[in-house]
Amino acid sequence: MSTTEARPASLITSLSPSLPPAMQQPQMPLADAIRFLSIDAILRAGEGHQGVPLGMAEIATALFTRHLKFNPDDPTWPDRDRFVLSNGHGSLLLYSLLYLTGYAAIGLDQLKTFRELGSHCAGHPEYEPAHGIEATTGPLGQGIANAFGMAIAEAYLAAKFGSELVDHYTYAFVGDGCLQEGIGQEMISLAGHLRLGKLILCWDDNQITDDGSTSLSISEDVCARFRVGGWHVVEVDGHDLDAVSAALMIARTDPRPSMIACKTIIGRGIERLQGQRGGHSGKLFQADADTARAQLGWTHAPFEVPEDILSAWRAAGRRSHHEHRAWRARVAALPESRRAEFERVQSGALPHGWRDVLDAYRKRAVECDKPQPGIALSGEISDLLVPILPERMVGCADLEAPTGHKRQLHAFTADDRSGAYVHCGVREHLMGAMANGMAAHGGIIATSVTYLAFSDYQRPAMRMAALMGLPVVFVFSHDSIGVGKNGPTHQPVEILASLRAMPNMRVLRPADAVEAAECWALALEHRDGPSTLVFARQALPLVRRTHSAEPLSRRGAYVLAEADGGQRVATLLATGSEVALALQARSQLQDEGIATAVVSMPCWEIFDEQDDAYRAAVLGPGTVRIGVEAALRFGWDRYLGERGGFVGMTGFGASADAYTLFEHFGITAGHVVAEVKRFL
Amino acid sequence: MSTTEARPASLITSLSPSLPPAMQQPQMPLADAIRFLSIDAILRAGEGHQGVPLGMAEIATALFTRHLKFNPDDPTWPDRDRFVLSNGHGSLLLYSLLYLTGYAAIGLDQLKTFRELGSHCAGHPEYEPAHGIEATTGPLGQGIANAFGMAIAEAYLAAKFGSELVDHYTYAFVGDGCLQEGIGQEMISLAGHLRLGKLILCWDDNQITDDGSTSLSISEDVCARFRVGGWHVVEVDGHDLDAVSAALMIARTDPRPSMIACKTIIGRGIERLQGQRGGHSGKLFQADADTARAQLGWTHAPFEVPEDILSAWRAAGRRSHHEHRAWRARVAALPESRRAEFERVQSGALPHGWRDVLDAYRKRAVECDKPQPGIALSGEISDLLVPILPERMVGCADLEAPTGHKRQLHAFTADDRSGAYVHCGVREHLMGAMANGMAAHGGIIATSVTYLAFSDYQRPAMRMAALMGLPVVFVFSHDSIGVGKNGPTHQPVEILASLRAMPNMRVLRPADAVEAAECWALALEHRDGPSTLVFARQALPLVRRTHSAEPLSRRGAYVLAEADGGQRVATLLATGSEVALALQARSQLQDEGIATAVVSMPCWEIFDEQDDAYRAAVLGPGTVRIGVEAALRFGWDRYLGERGGFVGMTGFGASADAYTLFEHFGITAGHVVAEVKRFL
Repeated sequence: MSTTEARPASLITSLSPSLPPAMQQPQMPLADAIRFLSIDAILRAGEGHQGVPLGMAEIATALFTRHLKFNPDDPTWPDRDRFVLSNGHGSLLLYSLLYLTGYAAIGLDQLKTFRELGSHCAGHPEYEPAHGIEATTGPLGQGIANAFGMAIAEAYLAAKFGSELVDHYTYAFVGDGCLQEGIGQEMISLAGHLRLGKLILCWDDNQITDDGSTSLSISEDVCARFRVGGWHVVEVDGHDLDAVSAALMIARTDPRPSMIACKTIIGRGIERLQGQRGGHSGKLFQADADTARAQLGWTHAPFEVPEDILSAWRAAGRRSHHEHRAWRARVAALPESRRAEFERVQSGALPHGWRDVLDAYRKRAVECDKPQPGIALSGEISDLLVPILPERMVGCADLEAPTGHKRQLHAFTADDRSGAYVHCGVREHLMGAMANGMAAHGGIIATSVTYLAFSDYQRPAMRMAALMGLPVVFVFSHDSIGVGKNGPTHQPVEILASLRAMPNMRVLRPADAVEAAECWALALEHRDGPSTLVFARQALPLVRRTHSAEPLSRRGAYVLAEADGGQRVATLLATGSEVALALQARSQLQDEGIATAVVSMPCWEIFDEQDDAYRAAVLGPGTVRIGVEAALRFGWDRYLGERGGFVGMTGFGASADAYTLFEHFGITAGHVVAEVKRFL
Repeated sequence: MSTTEARPASLITSLSPSLPPAMQQPQMPLADAIRFLSIDAILRAGEGHQGVPLGMAEIATALFTRHLKFNPDDPTWPDRDRFVLSNGHGSLLLYSLLYLTGYAAIGLDQLKTFRELGSHCAGHPEYEPAHGIEATTGPLGQGIANAFGMAIAEAYLAAKFGSELVDHYTYAFVGDGCLQEGIGQEMISLAGHLRLGKLILCWDDNQITDDGSTSLSISEDVCARFRVGGWHVVEVDGHDLDAVSAALMIARTDPRPSMIACKTIIGRGIERLQGQRGGHSGKLFQADADTARAQLGWTHAPFEVPEDILSAWRAAGRRSHHEHRAWRARVAALPESRRAEFERVQSGALPHGWRDVLDAYRKRAVECDKPQPGIALSGEISDLLVPILPERMVGCADLEAPTGHKRQLHAFTADDRSGAYVHCGVREHLMGAMANGMAAHGGIIATSVTYLAFSDYQRPAMRMAALMGLPVVFVFSHDSIGVGKNGPTHQPVEILASLRAMPNMRVLRPADAVEAAECWALALEHRDGPSTLVFARQALPLVRRTHSAEPLSRRGAYVLAEADGGQRVATLLATGSEVALALQARSQLQDEGIATAVVSMPCWEIFDEQDDAYRAAVLGPGTVRIGVEAALRFGWDRYLGERGGFVGMTGFGASADAYTLFEHFGITAGHVVAEVKRFL
């Protein structure tokens, strides 16, 4: 075993006395229990990835039987260590561990239905914290970036509530793929910078990826890359349980994030495939299992774990009972208000009266009636939330000034864990997955902010937030050609559509200060999925000119201005900065005797959930309907019907000032009027 | 200056005799011409990013006056060195260089319209190779990854045509942001692995990003990170023109890719802002310009470059005339067939008769009538293209076996530049931008392949391909819940919609072997934008059962099976694997006397370009129209009208075998029949 810096050779030995008793017991083939459960489940399912569960069995055994703080009887214990299987294709490693250590929901019946519909043992781990699955993983790199977010959450909450309440590690298992991905590299760089000492990775260094030898696509010294990033690196034999355990022990004490490079043999135990490309997920046959049983001396029937081994595993699952009880006692002993606050934050509940500040803001906005840049509105609201939602953290990808969400916050740094603002650097993808990790950790309201044009960089993470149903708030500014002179690279035209296309993602695009506050409220109260808040760079005049007790945005779309003088003939449907423009067009149309309503549609997804009658009343069937949005028409037709027109973009933007661009692309009140007349 | 390895201190000196004559001339303030053109243009535009043009002026001067091989009179000279400004916000650096060295289209009129509509001098550089702009840059990291692709293209073409025809460097300027981005890190890793010795980066090491000091978000030694990646690194004072030039000279001879770390002062020359956060893009005032003029002794009026300095720059622009003529002579002297092939490849023209192999494939497919996995069809077609399109390169992100596009190719490696298959590792984002760089370089038909679920990882690069109008072919497999047991992380449901939402991107989803060949042809002949080819993992039965001389897919959508027995009552619109299912449903409906047509819609974008009459004939206005696609409805309504139904997904997928999933989510012929009846 070598470590980053010269350490006395006796260190490992000298640590031994303080190792937990389990480490000094004679070794049972605990790891082989993982191996054979995995082999049996893959054989039964007819497919699966044996490479990880067989290759990392000893590493997992070391972690789960000697280090991991967890309690299968209370899987969501807030102060448990977090464990993320970033190389999620090796899901059977996790399922085997959950069964062996005694998670009630993960019985043999589940392992026997691996990869079948409705099984907890899905092809890749699917976020189920109640059953020990801390994150959905599979798309490579996401898991380690989630773990990074969890480690930040831990550090922040520890600073806030004290280490008697929050003091845990975050472990992640990681394969070569996760580290080749850019998001993995972003994580290495920022985790080292922030000195996240309680983040510990175990790298499955098996020198094999799906294509074959890692030498096909990488030749750098991965350990050296981590060292450059400021990590503590230990290199061990990944099949030597004691060595791995000792490395974990050292890692836990090092102030830097740790990477334990575990040399392993992929698919170890399957003679025909181990150490080879086919070890990853090559098809297993009964003969492979039979040979493995003979060679490893595992005489038990499929899915049978002998009593002594199962007992040892279950004992490992009870290892932290004492700590768990002590922690519960400490919580119970807290002063009432402090306990209530801790429990509130952990539960994700918003504090009593949280809405008041937003309602007051809405009211004030109507009184002030001052056009303001959209993103500045969000910044103001964010400022107001700081004192009432101390559990909110904000990540930003090197656009602090133009997005303006830091003012009332200070930075989370290596030296100051009380800061709620994470300078992510120009690393959007990591930022998104970090927010997911924070949300999955719990105790944090995770938000991030950057330009909408760069949302594509974090889109894979946003998809994971949607898939996991995590309440992350993704904030974006500079939402259209209103960006102006920076040009088409920075001007979203298709991105609203691409985000609206994502299942379980709410996309909110407020039209003014009032809707901005309403949409922030909708995002905060949405607990079973992420929200995307989209703001203009340019100034938004007030379109909601009278205060309403009811936040009108909460039905997703609403009639902002009903037609005057007779039955509605035309309906203008608009979002964001184009709502004001629709109001101008309505005014012209009304002057010409065309009874026109304006509908503001800040959130399609919520509107789609309303009853038919409401939707019909808003949309005005039979009227000419014109969508108005400085974006592409894609997706709008569902609301426009067959007498429907659209005023917006038809392709990418251009470099010029915003005013010129709106004229150039014909997104003007005049064009809206013309479009209505074309359909009359 | 320090280099990666110990070098004799005398090396730089000893290189001097071989330096080009320009290096030994007394220095004129050539760099200041860049500075003041940039200051003047930014002042006039009222905004812009002075940090890069002022901070990198000497670096650019060293490169353009002493090393870069280029010819402003023939900007697209195939063997020119490529130059990419990856930190594209510093666009005025590039525009100033183009003006100074004599690109005809970039006159002072253009600099004076910086950031105005229609100017060549847009906010960020926009791909215009005819005017010296080699890539659209702005979203950070894309440019260096494009440069990486260009360097691969050069190496491949050099291996193919010989160094007398292809022998140039690729230079890129890069800021901190590009290197923080994951894609930048992916590039470092793979470029070092592939030993792209003719790729040379100049890093603007100014220690400032938009948020302020780089120390807010990074503390690693960037040079060390490159060294770990196998790069040759030289560290110089970026304001010492001779030192930079010497470093470039060394870099050109090193067999490794080179990174020249240039210590610079951001915004150098603007006393009030230089070296500070505001140096990046803080607003400039007339007083700043006046002070700079006084301090730097630049006595000339705005936009005025004195004759001697302009002459020197123009002379630099003529530096490669001799090489250019010699190269043209070598091309002219080539044997006719070889010259024709070289010129064909450079022009992007497809070879005579290229379609024949695809037509033969279509014919054979009808005769064989054998269901095959969608992606296997693409693999077969790819194999057939190998001998006729030797200029085609394929990148793959560690999914060689399941995507099957390598069989007839061998790998492009550090030791073998003749390979057309790039093992990208698990680095999808780099892969996409690499393909863009290859296409922008010219001479290469750039394709990439991975799973559709991972397209989000390369989406930012796909957007750039669309924006630049590059003819890249993005191939994806595993296009729906047909993926099966790997589960929802790997099952696209929203991705077709999100790609169809992208302007200037053709999305093609073939239904069978015949359409697969037709769609490949459409992608290959599409020269002014990228194409996305999407294939099922599961077997696709033949739906086109008779050979047609005309490739029916070429109108985007077509009536595959017209209604029998009277006027069409229902129209089933389907794509890809669901076309076969629509045919089954049609059969049941016809049996019940409901005259039903099936329309196959492999490419919406092409269909949208057809005339109204054709579109109406296909869509069948007045009929009940049902969309059938194993994806979300988002985007479909434009074709369905108000009596329109849809059979597809309503959210994310699940982990189970494909057959079970199609049943579970109700994507069956029976449901299509029921949906038709619901609207009748």
